[in-house]
Amino acid sequence: MEHTTYQTLRVSQKDAIAYVTIDNPPINILSVAVMTDLRDLLASLAGDDTVRVIVFDSADPDFFLAHVDMTATAQALAGLMADLPEGVNLFQAVGEQLRQQPQVTIVKLAGKARGGGAEFVVAADMAFAAIGPAGLGQIEALMGIVPAGGATQYLTERVGRNRALEIVLGADLYDAETAERYGWINRALPAHELDAFVDRLAGNIAALPDDVIAAAKQAIAPHNHADGLARENDVWAGLVFRPATAQLMSAGLARGAQTRDGEQDLEALFRGLPG
Amino acid sequence: MEHTTYQTLRVSQKDAIAYVTIDNPPINILSVAVMTDLRDLLASLAGDDTVRVIVFDSADPDFFLAHVDMTATAQALAGLMADLPEGVNLFQAVGEQLRQQPQVTIVKLAGKARGGGAEFVVAADMAFAAIGPAGLGQIEALMGIVPAGGATQYLTERVGRNRALEIVLGADLYDAETAERYGWINRALPAHELDAFVDRLAGNIAALPDDVIAAAKQAIAPHNHADGLARENDVWAGLVFRPATAQLMSAGLARGAQTRDGEQDLEALFRGLPG
Amino acid sequence: MEHTTYQTLRVSQKDAIAYVTIDNPPINILSVAVMTDLRDLLASLAGDDTVRVIVFDSADPDFFLAHVDMTATAQALAGLMADLPEGVNLFQAVGEQLRQQPQVTIVKLAGKARGGGAEFVVAADMAFAAIGPAGLGQIEALMGIVPAGGATQYLTERVGRNRALEIVLGADLYDAETAERYGWINRALPAHELDAFVDRLAGNIAALPDDVIAAAKQAIAPHNHADGLARENDVWAGLVFRPATAQLMSAGLARGAQTRDGEQDLEALFRGLPG
Repeated sequence: MEHTTYQTLRVSQKDAIAYVTIDNPPINILSVAVMTDLRDLLASLAGDDTVRVIVFDSADPDFFLAHVDMTATAQALAGLMADLPEGVNLFQAVGEQLRQQPQVTIVKLAGKARGGGAEFVVAADMAFAAIGPAGLGQIEALMGIVPAGGATQYLTERVGRNRALEIVLGADLYDAETAERYGWINRALPAHELDAFVDRLAGNIAALPDDVIAAAKQAIAPHNHADGLARENDVWAGLVFRPATAQLMSAGLARGAQTRDGEQDLEALFRGLPG
Repeated sequence: MEHTTYQTLRVSQKDAIAYVTIDNPPINILSVAVMTDLRDLLASLAGDDTVRVIVFDSADPDFFLAHVDMTATAQALAGLMADLPEGVNLFQAVGEQLRQQPQVTIVKLAGKARGGGAEFVVAADMAFAAIGPAGLGQIEALMGIVPAGGATQYLTERVGRNRALEIVLGADLYDAETAERYGWINRALPAHELDAFVDRLAGNIAALPDDVIAAAKQAIAPHNHADGLARENDVWAGLVFRPATAQLMSAGLARGAQTRDGEQDLEALFRGLPG
Repeated sequence: MEHTTYQTLRVSQKDAIAYVTIDNPPINILSVAVMTDLRDLLASLAGDDTVRVIVFDSADPDFFLAHVDMTATAQALAGLMADLPEGVNLFQAVGEQLRQQPQVTIVKLAGKARGGGAEFVVAADMAFAAIGPAGLGQIEALMGIVPAGGATQYLTERVGRNRALEIVLGADLYDAETAERYGWINRALPAHELDAFVDRLAGNIAALPDDVIAAAKQAIAPHNHADGLARENDVWAGLVFRPATAQLMSAGLARGAQTRDGEQDLEALFRGLPG
């Protein structure tokens, strides 16, 4: 692996494992820079046959990936739209790229991941979460929109339609144990065991004989969600450009969204906005 | 919401939530009247944009919906068959209508629901059940038939083929915790927390910004079960008109089925019939 | 049921239940003889309408079915390939035959089942496992291959893609409780309750009125995995004939694979082989 420098990612390699630490202070917002770095990194690693497993974690103990940056301008987002694959929007492009990655991708979730951050978790091949600090939420509904980075489809595949509706419309933060029971993540683990568990699993997979990973990923192929992703994008596009959405995001930001304090219970913050 | 009077349903509205209490003494049998009322109510609410969420519960603490009335005559059922949607039988029509409802439908399950009652639960968008009093069972097999209101398909979607076979052929009553583990319901909750949990969830969903519910339900669309429902109906129709089925139902009724006592352990009652 | 004698199976019938005990000392390896016996038995029972339920267990308390015999010669395997159904390889043929069996098939898992043994478990209609002694593992990856008896498809159907990748690439032995939480088996039970639970369930199903089993199995039909099975076979065939695979198997056998001691922690044995 060539040790390219990324603005928001710290990347290192040990044996055949790439460790990617998301590091975008102050709260690991999924900014345009993070999305750009993730797409560049995944593209770079896709051609790197010295890497078999990619483990993602976070430099921030509280936030794995807070959520998509609500202050991102259309201009800033336009850069990400320059070379989109056919049939996906700029958020879906991250998840679909991750789902098609030739390496085994593992998320070590020890903090909160909401919105686009939660979509990154669910698009990875596997996710393991720390009981206590970890949290997952698709809370886009509180801002007058729906998830637009694949969650409506990936969640339905993992947890079924009934729990997907609960997650998307209930717009709550879920703890690791509930997420495991719902099938949202692979497994919830005691927080102090998470590192060792993922290190062992990643090490075991990286040490497999040649070509086994590619064969398994071909046999257990990602489901084709093209139709659902198009439907998701269409309904989202019908909501996101309404003034009400911009007003909700502005009001949320004014109340403390995207600050460390405000993000602790972002659901209550948005629900408490004057109607 | 116009406060139409229903024979077997008590309906009220608070803010954007319709509360529907099934009230068909003595044991909340899913009679022709209840099926008629449910279909009429759902049709009426479908055009009512002041209602965003529908919460179903039961006036009977022991029975959410006992099961389809075994004493219903062909003549009584014929009324329900007058204006069936294409491709579904009269029982499937209830579940399919519920699955297509524009509102978010939530079942608060604090008693038993067997047969067609359990099918109603599983056709709703979400179901939450009280640990202890709640019970779910597809016990049609004990009467010589199979579920014919969608359960064979809806259950397979939710719990997988293996557990669906166990539920349908094992013909037992399942407690809330097992039902949650199987993915049959969204979640099992301590009985004293059920009301507050569902009230909060329904309130949060009802308070979402405009159009979010419709967008989410469009993105997380109901699976099309047309082929499976046709298969289910065909095999059921091959069994239900046999004399043995009528004899089993008569013998069950003679032993106490459709009485409060007999319904406590209806599985044992049917298994104990002289062979 | 005609009491044909099988080399590796003990078969008895009580009422409408066939009890099949796999008995292939010393460690219940899934040898060519076992595969042949299983296919013959299933074919024979398929035409036997006095049998409604088939319960599989093991004569060995430690091993339900250890895994496919690593010492099986091409010549021995060729016999199994003589009359394969279209579109499946010799291992997939066992699972597909089991999935199409007209009877209800139930696995009582009180020991370990790895590789092809685990595939047999997951191809049955239902599986119940003893907390403690039971274990399931798809550890083919440690030998440089992937599962080739349907596990990549059956597991994805049951546990989802993310957990299927974990199981196949993590190549660990899973305990009964984790297997239940993942949806890999129907249920994990205290070891001392397993017999009574399965006996009661099998008895209840066998006592159902005529034709109900056939109707339920038709309504809850096996998913058609033809495409996935072909993909699984193709990637497996690309790996299995490499010298590295033969070397790994030989080295494993030299270290104690297929002995009672070596099979206790077969994963560690293979991971400990000199690289």
